[in-house]
Parts: sequence; C-alpha cells; structure tokens
Amino acid sequence: MVSSKPVSAKAEAMVLCRVPRWSVGLWASPGWWRTTCTLRALVQPKRGPGCPGGASGLLACSMFSKVSSCTPEVMLTQERYPVQRLPFSVVSEEDLAAFERIVPGRVVTDPEELEVSNVDWLRTARGCSKVLLRPRTSEEVSRILRYCHERNLAVNPQGGNTGLVGGSVPVFDEIILSTALMNQVTSFNSVSGILTCQAGCVLEGLSRYVQERDFVMPLDLGAKGSCHIGGNVATNAGGLRFLRYGSLHGTVLGLEVVLADGTVLDCLTSLRKDNTGYDLKQLFIGSEGTLGVITAVSILCPPRPKAVNVAFLESAFYLLVETSGSSTGHDAEKLGCFLEQVLGSGLVTDGTVATDESKAQALWALRERITEALSGDGYVYKYDVSLPVERLYDLVTDLRARLGSQARHVVGYGHLGDGNLHLNVTVDAFSAALLDTMEPYVYAWTAGQRGSISAEHGLGFRKRDALRYSKPPPAVRLMQQLKALLDPKGILNPYKLLPTQA
Amino acid sequence: MVSSKPVSAKAEAMVLCRVPRWSVGLWASPGWWRTTCTLRALVQPKRGPGCPGGASGLLACSMFSKVSSCTPEVMLTQERYPVQRLPFSVVSEEDLAAFERIVPGRVVTDPEELEVSNVDWLRTARGCSKVLLRPRTSEEVSRILRYCHERNLAVNPQGGNTGLVGGSVPVFDEIILSTALMNQVTSFNSVSGILTCQAGCVLEGLSRYVQERDFVMPLDLGAKGSCHIGGNVATNAGGLRFLRYGSLHGTVLGLEVVLADGTVLDCLTSLRKDNTGYDLKQLFIGSEGTLGVITAVSILCPPRPKAVNVAFLESAFYLLVETSGSSTGHDAEKLGCFLEQVLGSGLVTDGTVATDESKAQALWALRERITEALSGDGYVYKYDVSLPVERLYDLVTDLRARLGSQARHVVGYGHLGDGNLHLNVTVDAFSAALLDTMEPYVYAWTAGQRGSISAEHGLGFRKRDALRYSKPPPAVRLMQQLKALLDPKGILNPYKLLPTQA
Repeated sequence: MVSSKPVSAKAEAMVLCRVPRWSVGLWASPGWWRTTCTLRALVQPKRGPGCPGGASGLLACSMFSKVSSCTPEVMLTQERYPVQRLPFSVVSEEDLAAFERIVPGRVVTDPEELEVSNVDWLRTARGCSKVLLRPRTSEEVSRILRYCHERNLAVNPQGGNTGLVGGSVPVFDEIILSTALMNQVTSFNSVSGILTCQAGCVLEGLSRYVQERDFVMPLDLGAKGSCHIGGNVATNAGGLRFLRYGSLHGTVLGLEVVLADGTVLDCLTSLRKDNTGYDLKQLFIGSEGTLGVITAVSILCPPRPKAVNVAFLESAFYLLVETSGSSTGHDAEKLGCFLEQVLGSGLVTDGTVATDESKAQALWALRERITEALSGDGYVYKYDVSLPVERLYDLVTDLRARLGSQARHVVGYGHLGDGNLHLNVTVDAFSAALLDTMEPYVYAWTAGQRGSISAEHGLGFRKRDALRYSKPPPAVRLMQQLKALLDPKGILNPYKLLPTQA
Repeated sequence: MVSSKPVSAKAEAMVLCRVPRWSVGLWASPGWWRTTCTLRALVQPKRGPGCPGGASGLLACSMFSKVSSCTPEVMLTQERYPVQRLPFSVVSEEDLAAFERIVPGRVVTDPEELEVSNVDWLRTARGCSKVLLRPRTSEEVSRILRYCHERNLAVNPQGGNTGLVGGSVPVFDEIILSTALMNQVTSFNSVSGILTCQAGCVLEGLSRYVQERDFVMPLDLGAKGSCHIGGNVATNAGGLRFLRYGSLHGTVLGLEVVLADGTVLDCLTSLRKDNTGYDLKQLFIGSEGTLGVITAVSILCPPRPKAVNVAFLESAFYLLVETSGSSTGHDAEKLGCFLEQVLGSGLVTDGTVATDESKAQALWALRERITEALSGDGYVYKYDVSLPVERLYDLVTDLRARLGSQARHVVGYGHLGDGNLHLNVTVDAFSAALLDTMEPYVYAWTAGQRGSISAEHGLGFRKRDALRYSKPPPAVRLMQQLKALLDPKGILNPYKLLPTQA
C-alpha cells in the first residue's frame, strides 16, 4: 500500500499527457513497428517530473489507495446536495447492544475507523454513520437485517468502497454493513471452472486463486485490489475483460442474497443451465444493494488463456489491445498480421507489444490508474456513458468547447469495443454552477443518441435523478414497484439508484 | 416441409442405434482415425429401412414438421391432468368484434386452423381455444392485452409452438396470441453485430440474415425452422451454441415487452453496457410468457467464424464436437492435436471430421433430429436436467434399471459441456401409473445432486409442480409475488411455470 498523494501526482502526469489522445479509433499517418519491448522509451518521454522510472514502480501503485483520515475534509453529502433524511429510526444504545449480541466484537463505533467507510474513494460523498457491522456469515447478515427491518433502521451495504457514484457510502446515518470479513472461497471446480465464494472476497485475491488453478476471473478492473466480488455483482461491474467474457448477467451462475426482512434467498446454484422459474438472481445483479444484500456468489471462470498478447498502439488516440488464445505461435501470427495491416494502411503510426507478463501488466497499469490520476487533478466530475461507437468521442470535444476555461481538463477514455466512454472533467473545486452547465447537458446529449447515462458505474447517489434520460416512465415505475415489493420499508441503501420521489 | 410420419420413422431408426451411446465422455479402447469424410460409411450401416441415402436427405428434414389435423386425436390437457379452469371470462361475440377492430382480418376462429395451435409439437397437450389473434405490431399487442385485461380474458402467447413442456398451447380456452406476423427485422449494425427485430422472426431466417452479413446468431437449436426469437427469449432457450456464446441473459441486449395491462415496456436498447437501474429485461428472459409478451428483441450476434470444424467421435458414447475460430490452418492444427491425443490415449476409438459445410450440417442433423425421432417411438416422457458432469449418465442407467420392461427406451443425450442431460422415456401410450414411477423419482434424484429439474426446456404446464425440487420456498414465494405484481389478474399464460396454488 502506498500513500495516496504521491500516487496521484505520479499518475496525474501520465494522464495529462494522455489527454489529447484516446483509444477511440485508429486514424493516423503511416508508421513503423518496434518488435522489441519499448515500454520505457515510449512512456517515459511523456511523463512529468515525479513519474517512477520503471514498470515495477507503476505496478506497485496499481491497487487503490485507502483514504487516510489526515487528508482534507470532505463535505457532507447532505450539505453538498439537496437531500432530505427519510424517517428511519436512529441507532440507540439498545440497538448497539443487540448488534453486539449478533456480531460480538465486530461492531465498530470508533469515529476514526468509521471515517474511512463514510467517505467514498473519490472523496466527493460523505455520510455520518455512527456504526459499522462486520458479519462473517449469511446467517449473521440475516439476523442483522431482520433486526433493522423491525426497528426501521436504514442500512448501507458496503464492499470495497470503490464505487464512483456515491453508492457505497451512507448519505446520512445509515448503518454500514461491511462484507469485509465474508472473504472465504467455498468451492472451486477445476473441471468446470465454477467458483463459489462469499461476497467479501477481494477480486484480486480471487483472480490469483483461480489463476493458480489455470483459470481466470471473467472480470478485471482497476479497483481489483480493494473491490469485493459482492460489490462487483451488486453494481454489475464491467471492466477490462467485458469484451472478451461478457456481462456478469451471463457469467454469474448463482447468488445467495439476504432480503430486507432477513429472508435468505438461496439461488446459489453452480449450474450452467437452470430454467426453473424466473431467474431471480438477475434482479440483484446491478441493483446496487437496494433490493437485497448479496452474501455469496457462484461465477463461471474461463480457462486461463495459454497465450496473452498486449499491444499499446499510437495513432490519433492511444489504443491498448489485449488478445488471448490457446497457442502462442498462432496468436503471435494473428497479431502480426493485424499490426502489419494497420501499420501498412497508416491507421497506426507507432506502438509496442509487451514481451513478458510484467510488461503486459505495466501497460495495463497505464489504463488502470487513470481514475486515480484524475482524482489527483482536483475535483472530478465523472460521466460514464454508452454511445454508438461512431459518436463516442464527439461528446468529449463538444463538452470541451462548452466548458472552455471553466475546466482544468476534459478527458475521454474508455472501452472502444463496448461503446463505453468515461468522460471526466477536472476542476479546482466542486462548483454547483459548473454542474448546471454540464447537467443535464451531458445526459440529454447521451439520450439524443439513445445511449446510456451510466454504462458500468451505476446510478448510486449522484446519478439517480438522471435515470429518466435512459429509461422511459413505465420502466422507472416498474423499478419502483420492485423496490417496494422487495424492500417495503425502503431500508436498503436508501437515496440510491431510484429517482427522488416527487 | 415434409409430413411428420416418414420423418419420424427415419429418425427413429437413427436414434434407436444411438440409444446405448451418448456423448457424456470419452472412455474407450484405442482406435484409428479417418481423415477423409466417412459420413455415409459411418451413418448408413446403422440406419433402419426407410432412411434416406445421403446427407441432403437428412437436411431436408431438419425443420420441425407441423402437426396436421389428420393425425390421431390428442387427449385434452384438462382430461389428462388434474387441473381446474380459473374464473376467467369466456370469449363472447362482442369480444370477437372488438378483436376484429384491433386486428382486422386477423382473428382466427376456424376450428381446423385452431387445431394446429391448440396442440403442442410433442402431441401431448391440447387446449380448446376458440380464437387466435395475429397482431403485426406492438401497438396491436398492447391494445389486445389492454382489452383482455379489462375483460378478464386469459391469453396464451404463442411463437413457433415448439416448446416441450406444454407451455406454448392453451390448457383451456385461453385466447392464443400469435407472434407469427411480427416477423420484421428492424435493424442490423454490421460493425457491432447487434440485431433488432420483432419477436415473431423465425430463428432460421434470422440465422440466414446475419450469416449473409458475416455474423451468426448466438443460439441455434433443432427447432430453428419453426421457433420464434421471441419464444426463444421467453423460454431462455439454450441449444447448440450455448457453450460457445453463453446464455441469452448475456447476449440479449434489449427487449420490448407488453405487460398484462397493455403497458408497453420499452427496454429495447442496443447497448453493450447499460447500468441505469434494475435490468428489467432479465425478468422476462425465461418467464415463459407469464409476466409479459415479448414483442421485440435486440441481440448481440458474434462474428461469423471463418473456420468451423465438426467432428463426430466414437467411444463409449457418441460425441459431436464443433470448433470455431478465425484461421482454418490454426484450427485444423489444434483439432489435429486434440484428436491425436484422444486417439492415442484410447479415449476415442473411431470418428469422422466433416470436410465441408454440407457434411457438417449432416452431422449436426444427427443431433438436431433426435427429439423428432423420439416422438416417433411412441409417447415420450421428457426430462431435461442439469447435473454435475460426473453424475450425468448415472440417472439414465438408474432409471433404465428402475423401469425395466415398462419402457420401450430410456435414452440419454444432451450437452456435455453444459452438464445438461436430456432424458427421454418412450412407451406405447401415456400411462399415469408409469408417470408415478418416474415422478418424483427423477426430480428427487436430481435435487439430491443440487441439479436443475429443467435445464433449458422450462417448466411450462407439465413441470410447474416440480419447481420446488430446484428452488427453495423463499424463491418460489418471490416468483409468485413477481407474478402478482406484473400480472395481478393472472391472465398471461395461466397454469404455467408457477406451481398450482394449494
């Protein structure tokens, strides 16, 4: 773990030189191709002072840094945004005693310890929860929720707290229900590649676990060092392997979920096919903790590819390409053909191919640390939209023109194959006026293309009122009905995902 | 189109010789490998009289045959099974006049025409609907449902009527709502491969359409010549490409659904990623027409593989293997290595590799026509279970021993890679006593392995009371609540999917 400040400074420089370029396409003049690894030569000249010298320096920072309590104060969400506390009960001494009976020694009330869980990773949202619970089992989660449901206490389920839309931290004084201690692998089938584990397993740990057994996790993301698989599923995380292995709606085979009233819903099958009734688990994938608390996950892991190639190409935009296959020779031949073609046609002018795994990881680190780098550039307004690929970058240039000098940087990057643009605007400090310049402009622009105003980050607290730009009124109504059905008292992750009621 | 009787006879012979063998594994004594196509030599000696001579004969029968009205009477479902009509209204002359206003000239009341839609493909279920409607647009479907909802008229949505669990035909006098005329492709993006079309498009037609554009449908099944894409989605069809391209929960990107009260729910986005609220479309995938009528589908089609190899191997079981990739040379090399290995080790003793597409299709026809062939062997009790692969065939041998001479044949085949066993028992004629010998035995056996009592066929009418063998009471309760929320009067496909209420 490294402290957050130096990491941001390092990464910031990297991103600043990336600003005018982005992997949206391959339009450029003819170039040449270096077959040896030219990572240092390629990356270093573009770094500002303070950048680390080599690949290992990059990798050391690839985990998300925890926010420490000595960093500057983050404004309370309830002060920054117009939001009213709903009439939930307030945690009493009797409640704390009851929790202590359910999870003895795992009831956290120390303000310093709570601060880390009250503030989101982006440091743009802050709740004022007074208690955090650390269950170890689904049964404990069930007992906690049954109690909270009876007492009308609001609950904020929390995984690795790496979400980007203010969905993972309390808005007011919701009880934080952490999955951090629910971190056991239950089973792994080395023939089928089906992994079953508790919700609090950290993605990177799972990745290592299955890789040792010659499989890979079907998802990978920059926050892997901190994020929990339960949170990944609850937010329907996309990430870096989405194009290759598809959505979690396809790869998650089963879930165990505890409902708002404490009912344990066991849909934790490990079957590729199961058409017995409605596929209930799908409801919870992407529900952001508002319909139930995911306590265990069964997920299909693909075989570990024998051959992986990572190429970093330069054209009008930077382009990072990963291929995976079963034969080193075949894959090298295919990639060679592709590179010959794009270089010959002038689509790509320069680039590098990683020659070993550590270099491949160093190239990926360039991508994975952009979020971190941006947050070192000031306050970040983040948008995460799906658009038709041919219009993907237009939103960046349009917004850049619209904001002019009001923004430090308007940065666009993302997932070309998925049509997913991460649009980031950095400024000195949060400004409500600037927000009005961007919203609903960005949402309306996206809606005009029949795009999604949240491709993979979810709605959380900050985007919930923009839902109507991507979903028609009957869909929003049905979502509200589903919420009312599954959580009639609305205690689960309140103020999130669904629009403010009129 | 060919008549059903000769097809069944032909296919039956083929299946009879397949009975003792099945693609569950590769345990056998050493053999040799024919590199030239030996389809005729391999298949012909095993055929009975009446089998066609060559591959083209097989292919001509690969579509499902329509039941003609001159075949023997099928017992009414309400007479064969203990089921009570629910208190829905009965279609009146005024209703028919109202329907005529909504879909002029497309209200079918002719008994002979209705017979085809009242009887299921397996000829084991028969309703007595007096009217079939043929809307062309979602708006017409919406108006029909709004009317039926107000009048408390039950509706049986019907696609190609190729379902195997009695889900696609009325149980009593439900109005049949056919998607047959909703057969237009709306759009196809030749870069992303995203197809948008109406629900009544026949799978085979779509397959041809996208293949001409260098893509393939992510699903393929034996019923492709008749089944509708809307029905495929409504039943979460698995099929022959499941292992390669995954579940429809991953490949369906958007749906338009008309709810029971006529509300049009437009979730017909064509985006790879969209995390704006609950993923409502997932609710309808596999809901078997009980929560809404799917009127349009947006689906992701993978690029058409440049190289396809089909191998048919002989060991303790027959094994059909298809590989697909982007390079003929590479794929031939990989397949060659695999074959060398399994032949060398003795896992496989004999086999053939298709040398051109028509031969590949002929090999696939062997598999695709098993269902059809079985139905020519008498009355068929069908089970479709998911099991751990290592126990997959044990159920077949166990049931064979249990039934002894009571069954003509106990046949097991299926999808080895998915852990999906199709277990079929053929007898002279339906017998309730024999049913009692098999049920709940088969379900309890499957539940004992934490398997699924319906892997890909769904529950429909016949399996609905077996739901509890695969889903715990809280899950069944939640399904009932979802049904009550979306279809409070229960007019959509009644008597299907959910267990009979106590």
